[in-house]
Amino acid sequence: MKKYISIYLMFAFIPVAVALEHLRPDAHVLIFFTAALSIIPIARLISQSTENLAHYTGEAVGGLLNATFGNFPEFVIILMALQAGLHQMVLASLIGAILANLLLALGVSFFLGGLKYHSQEYNPVSSRIYATMMFIAVISMVVPSAFNRLFGGADIMREEYALNIGISAVLLVTYILYLVFMIKTHPDFFKSTELKKEPEAPEKPESHWSISRAIISLIAASLLAAWMSEILVGSAEATGKSLGMTTTFIGLIILAIVGGAAESLSAISMARKNKMDLTLSIALGSCIQIALLIAPLAVLMSFFIGPNPIQLAFGRVELGCLFMAVLMGIMVASDGKSNWYKGVQLITIYAIIAILFYFMPE
Amino acid sequence: MKKYISIYLMFAFIPVAVALEHLRPDAHVLIFFTAALSIIPIARLISQSTENLAHYTGEAVGGLLNATFGNFPEFVIILMALQAGLHQMVLASLIGAILANLLLALGVSFFLGGLKYHSQEYNPVSSRIYATMMFIAVISMVVPSAFNRLFGGADIMREEYALNIGISAVLLVTYILYLVFMIKTHPDFFKSTELKKEPEAPEKPESHWSISRAIISLIAASLLAAWMSEILVGSAEATGKSLGMTTTFIGLIILAIVGGAAESLSAISMARKNKMDLTLSIALGSCIQIALLIAPLAVLMSFFIGPNPIQLAFGRVELGCLFMAVLMGIMVASDGKSNWYKGVQLITIYAIIAILFYFMPE
Amino acid sequence: MKKYISIYLMFAFIPVAVALEHLRPDAHVLIFFTAALSIIPIARLISQSTENLAHYTGEAVGGLLNATFGNFPEFVIILMALQAGLHQMVLASLIGAILANLLLALGVSFFLGGLKYHSQEYNPVSSRIYATMMFIAVISMVVPSAFNRLFGGADIMREEYALNIGISAVLLVTYILYLVFMIKTHPDFFKSTELKKEPEAPEKPESHWSISRAIISLIAASLLAAWMSEILVGSAEATGKSLGMTTTFIGLIILAIVGGAAESLSAISMARKNKMDLTLSIALGSCIQIALLIAPLAVLMSFFIGPNPIQLAFGRVELGCLFMAVLMGIMVASDGKSNWYKGVQLITIYAIIAILFYFMPE
Repeated sequence: MKKYISIYLMFAFIPVAVALEHLRPDAHVLIFFTAALSIIPIARLISQSTENLAHYTGEAVGGLLNATFGNFPEFVIILMALQAGLHQMVLASLIGAILANLLLALGVSFFLGGLKYHSQEYNPVSSRIYATMMFIAVISMVVPSAFNRLFGGADIMREEYALNIGISAVLLVTYILYLVFMIKTHPDFFKSTELKKEPEAPEKPESHWSISRAIISLIAASLLAAWMSEILVGSAEATGKSLGMTTTFIGLIILAIVGGAAESLSAISMARKNKMDLTLSIALGSCIQIALLIAPLAVLMSFFIGPNPIQLAFGRVELGCLFMAVLMGIMVASDGKSNWYKGVQLITIYAIIAILFYFMPE
Repeated sequence: MKKYISIYLMFAFIPVAVALEHLRPDAHVLIFFTAALSIIPIARLISQSTENLAHYTGEAVGGLLNATFGNFPEFVIILMALQAGLHQMVLASLIGAILANLLLALGVSFFLGGLKYHSQEYNPVSSRIYATMMFIAVISMVVPSAFNRLFGGADIMREEYALNIGISAVLLVTYILYLVFMIKTHPDFFKSTELKKEPEAPEKPESHWSISRAIISLIAASLLAAWMSEILVGSAEATGKSLGMTTTFIGLIILAIVGGAAESLSAISMARKNKMDLTLSIALGSCIQIALLIAPLAVLMSFFIGPNPIQLAFGRVELGCLFMAVLMGIMVASDGKSNWYKGVQLITIYAIIAILFYFMPE
Repeated sequence: MKKYISIYLMFAFIPVAVALEHLRPDAHVLIFFTAALSIIPIARLISQSTENLAHYTGEAVGGLLNATFGNFPEFVIILMALQAGLHQMVLASLIGAILANLLLALGVSFFLGGLKYHSQEYNPVSSRIYATMMFIAVISMVVPSAFNRLFGGADIMREEYALNIGISAVLLVTYILYLVFMIKTHPDFFKSTELKKEPEAPEKPESHWSISRAIISLIAASLLAAWMSEILVGSAEATGKSLGMTTTFIGLIILAIVGGAAESLSAISMARKNKMDLTLSIALGSCIQIALLIAPLAVLMSFFIGPNPIQLAFGRVELGCLFMAVLMGIMVASDGKSNWYKGVQLITIYAIIAILFYFMPE
């Protein structure tokens, strides 16, 4: 517990961010980074509440809750951006979050875990399922983007909206069935390799929160996240310009790392404890949820909130990076073993992509 | 035997289709669907004859015969379309048949098989070979298409024809060597997992046809297929327009499902019997044959029949879908195991592609 | 030893090439082919010296030395071309060498090895690492190329150079860490399957060279290679034109096969001896080094030698072929087994690519 106190000290950034926004509304950069930093302890609180809740709900549902609430800040950011009509920012959040989880969070986990253990193992069956889900996610983003680029125009707007709605509906059904598969019919496929080998090791029992404390923490943290995310989005564009970074770089790299910091940190700490199955389920489960739940929800909700509906029309560069990243992730993470160099490989791809976005003109 | 009677009742569509074509030549939609429906029992008869023939020729040759004659209707459709100069229809048939076999037939097989069995197994060695063949198939279609799109033009027509002929020749050699590999040198790689575990289970013996009955049925069915296919192709374009569907959608989705119904049905029924190796050899073997035998044959024959030679110049969207579908198929079907959710994943991709083709402007 | 005498007789081509260059400087075709042929025995000498050296340095370092010095001729060709400002030739050398190693050398090895053995085995762990490295290589070439094609122009030249330098630096770090991983921390992952099964078989001892003979041979051969490569590059362009071949075809196919002949030959001979792990480490290790060491070195050095810095801006066709080839290589070579038909599959892809380059207009 003690080790998280330093993170929780960062809650102090919340009042600072709020104060700055009211007293110095032009200090975009300062507001942006203060709000960004304040997201970290909030996200940590969400993830910790979820982990505690999981003791009462079981591992599969717990992992799902972790992913769901861990993605809550991203979801709020996306909702805010939708309402403000900042469609480019929504798209960047989606892609950025996937890249950060898949390459950076998993890469650092493999790397730091691998520095401690010669070779780490995880369930290859579940990791192959994650891999295939990631690939479906890519296809579901490539198809409407290609449609937009090849045929898009005012005269076929109706068809394009219909296409986006149709694909979103299909994805939601696929995601719900994925939950049925994972929780109901095939939970055995998602057991950790450790648990298969031996009956649950009698771990040194951590002191768990009560269920009510866990739930209340979760709700409070989610509300805080929504608030800070709103401030963050409000100052993002101006910040980008004043720092000389492109909107693309801010959205795809900086925001994504900040927004996903909580999951990333817990994925990494699980890897250091040699609990690689949890690492994978956090990092990849989060990607899958963003692509197959949050993205289609964003499309469907955009017909009700915001100035006009969003289309999943990603740019070629973003899609190319996503495609490469997913293929890379699949290649690296589907044989049930990891080591420090696999981490280097994933981080290398992330570095190449970050360099690309850094130098890419608007 | 009894259970197929209902399918064989559909033979009644043959005279109806012929009658309609002569009496009401303008009723394109009616002619189209009657002819399409009449293909189903014919294809079933072809597949049943082949299965019976396989009792005399052995499993490997039997699977090959099934694929060969199961693809006969597609082959006839392609020949008719070549003769009529409908090159777009030929290309659509090729892509559509592969997508339908790889995603829909295999997906429904995995799904329905998986509803009955928790997890089904098949030979991972042969499925990896199928996967690689599928990937060669994709490359062999991407290369001439890219050539056409990037360099195509009247002034380099000669080179383009030469490229198509060259690649077709290479593919035919590759396919012949594949047969040698499968039948002659490495039949052990294609044994079903079941057979490896136990000496051939003493199945309840079905009453087999005599070899002469099997051969005669096969020839008769093939002739019928050719006849109906001609009617089908003749009415396809007009039908598309009157139903408000695009030619693309008709060709790539409707025709493909109808034309491949027989194989699909037998692949599915094998999955329900937990004979997954047969399911894979039918669904994937058929794809492989279309891409590596029928496509190059169509190219070479187009120099002798039809108004002008065909080039394998697929559109970017079609190729993209094919590429995604094959990668997806490889990912899902190369670890030797299946379950209902793998079926959902394949069907999801097919649904996304179908939605795309539905809304795609001509 | 005797069997290599015929190769060493080809040293006679060296004086012929030199003489021709001085006496008949216009006989480009003759000079080109004489110089090309003279590279073969030189490369063989390099590879043989390296193998002998490896007896003193151990297997892992030995394999590395083989790849390093086996790639020396390519490196020299690239340096010469950089100095002459022939950037297209540099890019073609890089892609061509990878394609030739990955598809042709490995394909012929699998094919000829497979004719002798029903099924051959190698370490699937190391081959998966090679596969991932190959994929990183592809991404590292796709990213700057896409940048150049989508955004390239005089006004963002600075950013493009920075991007190339940044990616090159990342790749060099990744490659150095790869060496650390392979040699220092995880040499157990790269042990051959054979060695795992049994303690080193007491082979019939070949007579080894002394360490000083090995080193001197190596240096001498490398100098010869540099010399001949200079003559080769000097006559390549004129040769291409007079033979009616395109520069692309010469660079990507002919030069690549000639330049890589030595490694290819040793990879094949190892396959015939059923030492598949050596085959893979030569063929794939060489590809990895070209992409992750030589390419970034070429970029960085081009700021100091040659008229202007090079950018890794490959054409779409070249990149497409590379991408397909690497996916194919990964699919074929990552399950730890090979047979003659896997060789056919790889050669098929090489043949399709060669046909494409042959007919492709400039």
